Amino acid sequence: MPIDERSAEEIAQARSRSATTLRPTVPALEARLHQPTPCLDHGFVRLVDYMGDDAAVVQAARVSYGAGTRKLREDRGLIRYLMRHRHTTPFEMCELKLHVKLPIFVARQWIRHRTASVNEISGRYSVLDTEFYTPAAQDLAVQSASNRQGRGAELSPEQAQQVLAILQHEAAGAHASYAQLMERFDLARELARINLTLSTYTQWYWKIDLHNLLHFLALRLHPHAQREFRVYSQAIAEIVAAWVPTTWEAFEDYRLGAHTVSRQEVQVIKAALAGQPVDQPSSGLSKREWAELMRTFGLEQGDPE
Amino acid sequence: MPIDERSAEEIAQARSRSATTLRPTVPALEARLHQPTPCLDHGFVRLVDYMGDDAAVVQAARVSYGAGTRKLREDRGLIRYLMRHRHTTPFEMCELKLHVKLPIFVARQWIRHRTASVNEISGRYSVLDTEFYTPAAQDLAVQSASNRQGRGAELSPEQAQQVLAILQHEAAGAHASYAQLMERFDLARELARINLTLSTYTQWYWKIDLHNLLHFLALRLHPHAQREFRVYSQAIAEIVAAWVPTTWEAFEDYRLGAHTVSRQEVQVIKAALAGQPVDQPSSGLSKREWAELMRTFGLEQGDPE
Amino acid sequence: MPIDERSAEEIAQARSRSATTLRPTVPALEARLHQPTPCLDHGFVRLVDYMGDDAAVVQAARVSYGAGTRKLREDRGLIRYLMRHRHTTPFEMCELKLHVKLPIFVARQWIRHRTASVNEISGRYSVLDTEFYTPAAQDLAVQSASNRQGRGAELSPEQAQQVLAILQHEAAGAHASYAQLMERFDLARELARINLTLSTYTQWYWKIDLHNLLHFLALRLHPHAQREFRVYSQAIAEIVAAWVPTTWEAFEDYRLGAHTVSRQEVQVIKAALAGQPVDQPSSGLSKREWAELMRTFGLEQGDPE
Amino acid sequence: MPIDERSAEEIAQARSRSATTLRPTVPALEARLHQPTPCLDHGFVRLVDYMGDDAAVVQAARVSYGAGTRKLREDRGLIRYLMRHRHTTPFEMCELKLHVKLPIFVARQWIRHRTASVNEISGRYSVLDTEFYTPAAQDLAVQSASNRQGRGAELSPEQAQQVLAILQHEAAGAHASYAQLMERFDLARELARINLTLSTYTQWYWKIDLHNLLHFLALRLHPHAQREFRVYSQAIAEIVAAWVPTTWEAFEDYRLGAHTVSRQEVQVIKAALAGQPVDQPSSGLSKREWAELMRTFGLEQGDPE
Repeated sequence: MPIDERSAEEIAQARSRSATTLRPTVPALEARLHQPTPCLDHGFVRLVDYMGDDAAVVQAARVSYGAGTRKLREDRGLIRYLMRHRHTTPFEMCELKLHVKLPIFVARQWIRHRTASVNEISGRYSVLDTEFYTPAAQDLAVQSASNRQGRGAELSPEQAQQVLAILQHEAAGAHASYAQLMERFDLARELARINLTLSTYTQWYWKIDLHNLLHFLALRLHPHAQREFRVYSQAIAEIVAAWVPTTWEAFEDYRLGAHTVSRQEVQVIKAALAGQPVDQPSSGLSKREWAELMRTFGLEQGDPE
Repeated sequence: MPIDERSAEEIAQARSRSATTLRPTVPALEARLHQPTPCLDHGFVRLVDYMGDDAAVVQAARVSYGAGTRKLREDRGLIRYLMRHRHTTPFEMCELKLHVKLPIFVARQWIRHRTASVNEISGRYSVLDTEFYTPAAQDLAVQSASNRQGRGAELSPEQAQQVLAILQHEAAGAHASYAQLMERFDLARELARINLTLSTYTQWYWKIDLHNLLHFLALRLHPHAQREFRVYSQAIAEIVAAWVPTTWEAFEDYRLGAHTVSRQEVQVIKAALAGQPVDQPSSGLSKREWAELMRTFGLEQGDPE
Repeated sequence: MPIDERSAEEIAQARSRSATTLRPTVPALEARLHQPTPCLDHGFVRLVDYMGDDAAVVQAARVSYGAGTRKLREDRGLIRYLMRHRHTTPFEMCELKLHVKLPIFVARQWIRHRTASVNEISGRYSVLDTEFYTPAAQDLAVQSASNRQGRGAELSPEQAQQVLAILQHEAAGAHASYAQLMERFDLARELARINLTLSTYTQWYWKIDLHNLLHFLALRLHPHAQREFRVYSQAIAEIVAAWVPTTWEAFEDYRLGAHTVSRQEVQVIKAALAGQPVDQPSSGLSKREWAELMRTFGLEQGDPE
Repeated sequence: MPIDERSAEEIAQARSRSATTLRPTVPALEARLHQPTPCLDHGFVRLVDYMGDDAAVVQAARVSYGAGTRKLREDRGLIRYLMRHRHTTPFEMCELKLHVKLPIFVARQWIRHRTASVNEISGRYSVLDTEFYTPAAQDLAVQSASNRQGRGAELSPEQAQQVLAILQHEAAGAHASYAQLMERFDLARELARINLTLSTYTQWYWKIDLHNLLHFLALRLHPHAQREFRVYSQAIAEIVAAWVPTTWEAFEDYRLGAHTVSRQEVQVIKAALAGQPVDQPSSGLSKREWAELMRTFGLEQGDPE
C-alpha cells in the first residue's frame, strides 16, 4: 500500500479543488490528476500537473495565434511530419510534472536524464521512511549469458526463496541500524543514512517537457532497460498516451516501432530486394548486426549467429 | 497596432474556451491569458499558458502530497529562505509560455538564454511580415562616454529627425527589395531575406521555467540592458508579479534590490562601522568599485572617482 | 580574404608557441590549429583548441585508468557499438573550440543549438566590421516548388546579375548609413546597428562536445540545410574526420548514411522480401513516405508519387 | 590505498607519453595530470585532461585572434570585471576532466549538477569492487540542533567506537551478501547489487566547463555542504587554483569571500554608517538574518538572537 492515510486525505483534497481555466485542458488527464499508479511493492507514479496538449505542439510549430487548426486531419499530419523528421522543438512546448516514489537504484539511473527538474527528499534534512524494494520471486533471475547488462532464466522456486530471505534479512538489518544509530547515539542523519541499501525507497517531484520525456521513454521502455525501471516507464507511457494521443501514435510509428538501418544494411536490403544473394561475410556487418537485421526483416536465409 | 483583425478574432476565441481543471490555477493570470501587451511600435508579449503557482514551489521543496501548507505565513518564510540561499530547483517547478513579437536585434540577445524552449517563425519557410522597429525620437541618444555598451544624452530634436529619416528610409528600402526579389525574380525566400534589417520584427513561442525566468529578468531588467529589451522584460515582470506574488517579493528583496559585496568591500564596511577612517587607495578596491560602494551605501567620505 | 594582416600575424605567433603536454594529442589536428578555413566570401572556421581523441571515448566508456585498450580493433568495435546503440555520453568526453566568422542569417540558425558555449562580438560594445555576404551568381535560385524551405532551379545569368546588383546596393547602403549614423550624429552603437542587414558578418568563439557536435552536423550537413550553412558544416566535418577518425567512420555508417524505417515501412520491406506484392495504398504510408522508401531501397515497382 | 598495482602502472604509462602541442598548456597542471589525490578512506580525484587557461577566458571575451593581450595587468582586470559582473560565458571556454572514486551517497548529491558530462561504472554491466566508506572516529557527530541538515558535537570516543562497529558490520555484511548472491545463485548483477549500501564506492569520469565548475565549488565548498563532499571539493579547488590562478583569485574575492546584502540589509548598513541607531525589530529582517548581518560586518550592537 504505497499511500498512507494522511496522504490519501491530501490527495482527496487536491482532487476536490477545481477551478475554471482558459488554458488547454485534457479531460483524460484531469481524471488521473493527483492519483497514484502503484509501481513495484511500495512505489508509485502520480500526475501532479501538466501544460499543453497535441494542439499546443501544432500551435508552436505554426507560431500562430490560434489553438491548432482545428482541422484534426491537418494537425495529425503536421505532428507526424514533425516526429518523422525529428523537428523536436515543438514537442518541448508541453510539460508534465510527476510525483514518484522509487527505489534508489532506479533513481540513480533515472537522474542521468539531465534535461528535467527534480526535487528529491533529503536524507540529510529528514528521517527517511524505512521502506525497501523486495523483488517478487518470479522476477529473480540469473545473469544473462548473452547480454552483459541483463538477466536470463528465472531462479528455481527454492533458490528464489533463499535469495529473497537474504535480500530481506540484509535490508531489514540495514534499516534497523539506521533507526538505532539515530535513536541510541543521536548520530547526525547525514551519517546514519550511509548504510541504507540501494533498495531503499526515495521520493521526488520530476518535471520534464514532452520532447525529453519521449526520449526518456524510448530508452527506458526498451527491453534492455532494467525491469524495475520499465514498470515506471510503462506507467508514465500510459499517462502520455492519454495526454497527447496524436503525438503518442506518431511516437509509436516513428520511434518505438521504427528501426534504424545502417549504411551497410541499406545495401543488404537493396540487394535482397533486387533478388541478389546476400550473406553475412560479404555484407560488411558483424554477426550480431547480421542476426539483428535478419530478425527485424524476417530474412531467414544467410548465416545465423 | 500589433494585432491584426484575424488574430484578434482568434484571441477572442481562445478566451471564450474555458474548462474545469484540478490543476493549480491563478485567477490573476487567467485574466491576462491570450491577451497581448504592446511593446515598442509593433511588438507584443502575450501569455499563452502557465503551470504552477507559489504553492507549487513550496510543494516541491517539501516533496509533499498537499498543495503547500496552506499556512500562508509558513509558505512565505520557506519561499524567502529558498530565494535567499539560492535553493533554485523548487522554482523550476513552475513554467510560463509566451508568444512574443520582437525586433531581430532584441531576439539575438534574447536567444542567448539557452535554458528555454523556442519556436520561431522561419524566413526560409514563410514570407515574413515587413514590419520594422523605428525608435521614438526621444529614445535616440549618443554613445555613452562612461559605459561602452550604453547610450548617453538624447539627440537634439533636429538631429533626431534626421536620424529617424535615415533609419526609416533604409529599412523601408530593404523591405521593398525583399518583396521585389520574391515577386519579380521568384528568388528563394531563404536568399531574399538576407538583406532584411536587424530592426525587422520576428515572432516566437518561448517557454521557460520560473527559476530561469528570474535569472533572465535579473539580467534584462538591469539598467545596463538595452532599453528596447527592457520594454519586454518589464512586460514579463508584471506577468510574473501577478502569477507568483510571494516569489516575486522575495526576488525583489534578495536579487533585484540586493547588492553583492566583495571580500575587500566587506572589510571596508566593517572598518567604517567600527569608526575607522577608510579611503580608496588603502581599500584594495579599484576607483570604479570604490565609487559604486560609496553610492550604494551612502558613504560620501573618501576619494570620489 | 577573410584574415587581415594583423590577424595573420597573431595566427603565426600562436602557431609558433609549442609546448610539451601529457594530454591526448592528435597530430592531424595540431597541423590545423589556429589556421582558418575560408567559408563563403568573407567567412572562416578556425580551430582554436581541442580536448580528447578516439581513445578518450573508449577510456570513459570503460571508466578505466588507461588510454583505451591500445588494441585498436577492440577500441573500434566499442566505438561502433556505442554509436549504433546511441550510447552518447562517452562522446561528450571530447571537446572542440572554433573561431567562426559567419553571416548573421547563418548565425541565427546556428545559435539554436543550445548545448554549446558561445562568445560573440557585441554590436553594442564594438563598431562592427562592415562586411556582408553576397552570394555567388550560381548560388542564386528560385523558390523550390516541392520543398517549402529550399531553393529550386538557378536563375538565368541575366536575372542573377540583376539580383546581385540589388543585394549589393542594399547592403552597401545599409553599411554606409551605419557608419554615417555614428560619425555624423555620434548615435549610440546599439542603435546605429539596428539597420544592418542579416547578411552582415559576425564572429564568435564556439565550444561544443563531440556528441552534440555530431548531432549538429547530422542536421546541418543534411541536403535540406541552407546551402550557406552547409559550407560551414562541411569545413567542420573535415576537422572532425581528422580529429577522431574511428568515431567519424562510425558516424558515417550509423548516422549520416543510415536510414530510419518506420513501423509501417518495416512491414512493407518484410513483405517485399517475402516476395509479396506491395503498393502505396495498402501500405499505410503517405505518398511522400512511399516515394522516399522506394528511392532509398531501390524499389521501383509500386506507385510513384 | 586507493590505487592498485595495475592502475599505478597505467598511470605511470600515461605520464610517460608526452607530445608536442600548439594548444594552451599549463605547466602546473601538467605536473598533476593522471595523478590521483586521495580523498576519504578509499577515494580519489584524478586530473585526466584540461582545455584552456586564464588567457583563453580573455581571448573569448575579446573574440580575438591572439592569446590574451599578453599585458598581464589588463588581462587580470578583464577577468575580475567578468567575475564581478557575472559575465559567465567566457569562463565556459575552459574545460576540466576528472576521474573520481567516491561513495554513492556523495555521488548522489554530485550528480544533481546537470551541466556536466558523466560516465559512471555500471553495476548492471560489471561486478563492483566491494569497498565502502567508513568515517574516521573524529568525524562522527550528533545531529545539529541549529542546522537541520548538519552535524553538531563529536561523539564521545566510546560512542564513536560503537557506531563504527555497527557501520562496519553492516556494510561488510552487505558486501558479503552481494558476492554470495552472484557466486552461489548466479543472481543477475543488476539484482545482486540492490542491497549494497550507500557507502559503497563508485567511480566516474566527469567533465565540466570552468563556469559550471566554479558554481559547483561555490556550493560544495560551503560549510553547510556535507563534510565528506567537501573533501572532494577541496581537492578540486586546489587543481583549479593551479590551473587558472587569476580566475581563482577573482572567484575568491567576488564569490567565495563575497556577501550578498538584501534590499533591507542595505538600508540597515546605510543607517549604521550614517550614525543612526539600528535594531532588529525595526530593520525588517528576521532574527536569523539580523544575526548573520551582525556577524558578517562585526556589528555587535543591536539585538542578538
